[in-house]
Amino acid sequence: MEKKLQEFREKIKEKKMIEGALEVLQWDLETTTPKKGKDYIAEIVGYLSMKEYNLTTSQEFEDCVEYLGNNIEKLNEVERKEIEELKEDIEKMKKIPPQEYQEYSELVARTQGVWEEAKAENNYNKYKGNLAKIFEYTIKFANYHRKDEKNLYDVILQDYEKGMTSEKLDEFFSLLKGEIVPLLKKIKEVGNPEKKLLQKIEIEKQKKFNRFIGEYLGFDFDRGVGAESEHPFTMNITKNDVRLTTKYIEDNPMSAVFSTIHETGHGIYEQQIGDNLQGTILGSGGSMGIHESQSRFYENIIGRDLHFWKGLCEKAKEEFTFLKDISLEDFYREINLVEPSLIRVDADELTYSLHIMVRYEIEKGIIDGSIDVEDLPKVWKEKMEEYLGVVPSTDSEGVMQDVHWSAGLVGYFPSYALGSAYSAQIYNTMKKELNVDEILESGEMYKIREWLGEKIHKYGKLKETPEIIKEVTGEDLNPKYYIEYLRDKYSKIYNI
Amino acid sequence: MEKKLQEFREKIKEKKMIEGALEVLQWDLETTTPKKGKDYIAEIVGYLSMKEYNLTTSQEFEDCVEYLGNNIEKLNEVERKEIEELKEDIEKMKKIPPQEYQEYSELVARTQGVWEEAKAENNYNKYKGNLAKIFEYTIKFANYHRKDEKNLYDVILQDYEKGMTSEKLDEFFSLLKGEIVPLLKKIKEVGNPEKKLLQKIEIEKQKKFNRFIGEYLGFDFDRGVGAESEHPFTMNITKNDVRLTTKYIEDNPMSAVFSTIHETGHGIYEQQIGDNLQGTILGSGGSMGIHESQSRFYENIIGRDLHFWKGLCEKAKEEFTFLKDISLEDFYREINLVEPSLIRVDADELTYSLHIMVRYEIEKGIIDGSIDVEDLPKVWKEKMEEYLGVVPSTDSEGVMQDVHWSAGLVGYFPSYALGSAYSAQIYNTMKKELNVDEILESGEMYKIREWLGEKIHKYGKLKETPEIIKEVTGEDLNPKYYIEYLRDKYSKIYNI
Repeated sequence: MEKKLQEFREKIKEKKMIEGALEVLQWDLETTTPKKGKDYIAEIVGYLSMKEYNLTTSQEFEDCVEYLGNNIEKLNEVERKEIEELKEDIEKMKKIPPQEYQEYSELVARTQGVWEEAKAENNYNKYKGNLAKIFEYTIKFANYHRKDEKNLYDVILQDYEKGMTSEKLDEFFSLLKGEIVPLLKKIKEVGNPEKKLLQKIEIEKQKKFNRFIGEYLGFDFDRGVGAESEHPFTMNITKNDVRLTTKYIEDNPMSAVFSTIHETGHGIYEQQIGDNLQGTILGSGGSMGIHESQSRFYENIIGRDLHFWKGLCEKAKEEFTFLKDISLEDFYREINLVEPSLIRVDADELTYSLHIMVRYEIEKGIIDGSIDVEDLPKVWKEKMEEYLGVVPSTDSEGVMQDVHWSAGLVGYFPSYALGSAYSAQIYNTMKKELNVDEILESGEMYKIREWLGEKIHKYGKLKETPEIIKEVTGEDLNPKYYIEYLRDKYSKIYNI
Repeated sequence: MEKKLQEFREKIKEKKMIEGALEVLQWDLETTTPKKGKDYIAEIVGYLSMKEYNLTTSQEFEDCVEYLGNNIEKLNEVERKEIEELKEDIEKMKKIPPQEYQEYSELVARTQGVWEEAKAENNYNKYKGNLAKIFEYTIKFANYHRKDEKNLYDVILQDYEKGMTSEKLDEFFSLLKGEIVPLLKKIKEVGNPEKKLLQKIEIEKQKKFNRFIGEYLGFDFDRGVGAESEHPFTMNITKNDVRLTTKYIEDNPMSAVFSTIHETGHGIYEQQIGDNLQGTILGSGGSMGIHESQSRFYENIIGRDLHFWKGLCEKAKEEFTFLKDISLEDFYREINLVEPSLIRVDADELTYSLHIMVRYEIEKGIIDGSIDVEDLPKVWKEKMEEYLGVVPSTDSEGVMQDVHWSAGLVGYFPSYALGSAYSAQIYNTMKKELNVDEILESGEMYKIREWLGEKIHKYGKLKETPEIIKEVTGEDLNPKYYIEYLRDKYSKIYNI
């Protein structure tokens, strides 16, 4: 037993080192690799992915996991959960033929660069071939993995949120829609004040302030870095090496600020994973839904709160000097301005979920065959018109705006909406235990960070998301908190 | 035969992919990895280095190389050279026990971070343990590799310049010293004008101008990137992915400029390797001496030339506005000012070789046991006093200034002096074939780039350095060109 456990730990160590190398290569592709060098790095990604595949699906490793699975009572809690997860992973991986696994890994790595170029050139034709292939593989793999799920899309959802189904999501989105659409109508009637925050601020100054915000929220830069990329993301190699990116826009300084707050939410989660999970396969954040709950909690519930900016506005004025001429109330109003727009990551909290619904329906449609990748620009525009009443004039601002599908993340988008719902539910509990307003005003952000660390972050993947939500909030996911939060917040702001 | 060749190419492809991943990890360690994440990345470097070791020393691969070696007449020129190189590599690698190889790889990767921290804190005690271990391994490995070399240091030199010996270097340096020391004495008597170039320029502006210079010299940023690091270096993954770093100092803008020109020299070399060598083990620059000849040619012969700045000065004034108040002649005078100083990379051309001699003698001394790593700060100061007449007040400006030993590059330093000598000899030929002054004034830098590409760069590792030097210049390495170049240049500048 002792020997098997040791063998197991050595294999896991090796598996994690290959994953670490892959993360660094991925990071490099998205932040550094020169244009004409990307294909080769993508090839190396394919090669190393194969190495990991071979390790994970080797008879030796499977035997080891099986042996430990048969002696589960002798394992501690962490090891048990690891074995449970690995059994699933191995089963899933083994269903994919090695050749296809390598091709897919390379395809995804290569598509990043293709997407960036096509987006820059507003050329969907350049991109659609790769996108179609990614969806083909997604469907193929989902067919391999299918058990008793009602449809293929439900199979895919399991990669991001275990137990989630399109039926549940349909219900969830329909509930949200029922609230958002009438609220939005009323808001439109009231109208918006003139915008004052679209001011030009040098990128260097923006960087300085964004770095400050990261630190202010509690991100530890000795154990992390910030960089730039076309699409902001967070990556963790270990809890001691967590990486955030932002995209800066010179004449819209608040864009990077909220993006930074969002990614910092992910980053703090990763930095606060329990030490007991380091070196295990559980040493990073849980489901995508719970991960997004943390980023969206920081970005919206905290980051767009009046008290938060009361605590931060003096500092903000140092780099963003134009804020000196704007009252805190006007500032608050504008960062919470509701206005249907084209770009998801810049969307206000209220219309945000509508952006997700567009993507959700398209994903589902491609997977069930009712939508063709060829027609996406058209379908995108139709759905934007239907849900938001605005239509992009370019595909760069339309179907090509997000990185997710290019990265193989089909089925990810619903996590954002789920995350928002989780975050409101968690916030409801937090407010009972902490004087959040006071904390935000005083800038003692560590109190919030530690609360989240203790209740959520430290568990990494040890606990499933539904379990955490139940333990923290006393009930299962309940969208009413999110709906109440939105209703309450916007009826006050718009006085309706 | 056909099958063996195919097997060979597949193995080489794999070997190069592992090397590529290692390069990216190394790049990440030096430019990005957060402080507390470095140990883990270093561990991954150790792991992947081991994978490469295992591949290169596997019986399968060795058999393959041997088989091809026995059928050398059926191979083309490139394959022959590859087999020849690999036979040597395998023989050398196999002499190192696997465990030691892994430990050493990790040690070197980890020492980068230790060096950076110790240098920032001016704490040699923090660093000396790692440094001593690196020298221990160097000695151990040299003992494994020793054939008929007279001493251990000569064994080490083979890694950087085949056929080089300390006897030849002693003679070379003694010749140089005989010229430099009296020249320096005369220059000191003449004295220097007041310095005007130590002006404060925002890093962002410096970056912009340095990027421009890279492009101006002919570096292709579609196939390369520029970044920052504590110690400037050039790295190539393929000829389509060549990476340069610079270190910016706010109140010394010319420091980064010459560093950029130097690294661009390396970078252009790598970008101009022949396409026929891509995917082979010969697809990068030759010996360290010839590599440094290219960087030092660009940095000094070109980069400190009056005609070059005639062509560039208007552009330079755009970012470095203070240059508007300085005449081109004064500028030229100052960038060629001779003044013994503490930092090698900032040294003038004349005293530069003295810095190399300090390092050369110390390396030799540690390897032959006459100098102890413990005493290095003291020895460093003594030798600086002896050769340059200046003594650092801190170890950061002394023995810890360079990255090389931390990176395991013991025996590298003489390459810089050899490179300078090669560059002067090559320049002597170039001037017969090109009107260099005119080219520099007109800014048609591609003419020089292409000349070097055709004569030197395209051969990569296909030809040995002595062969290239002979073919290009018509004779073997002859230090007289360098000595004449120095004498001629400085007697004019100082009017002596």
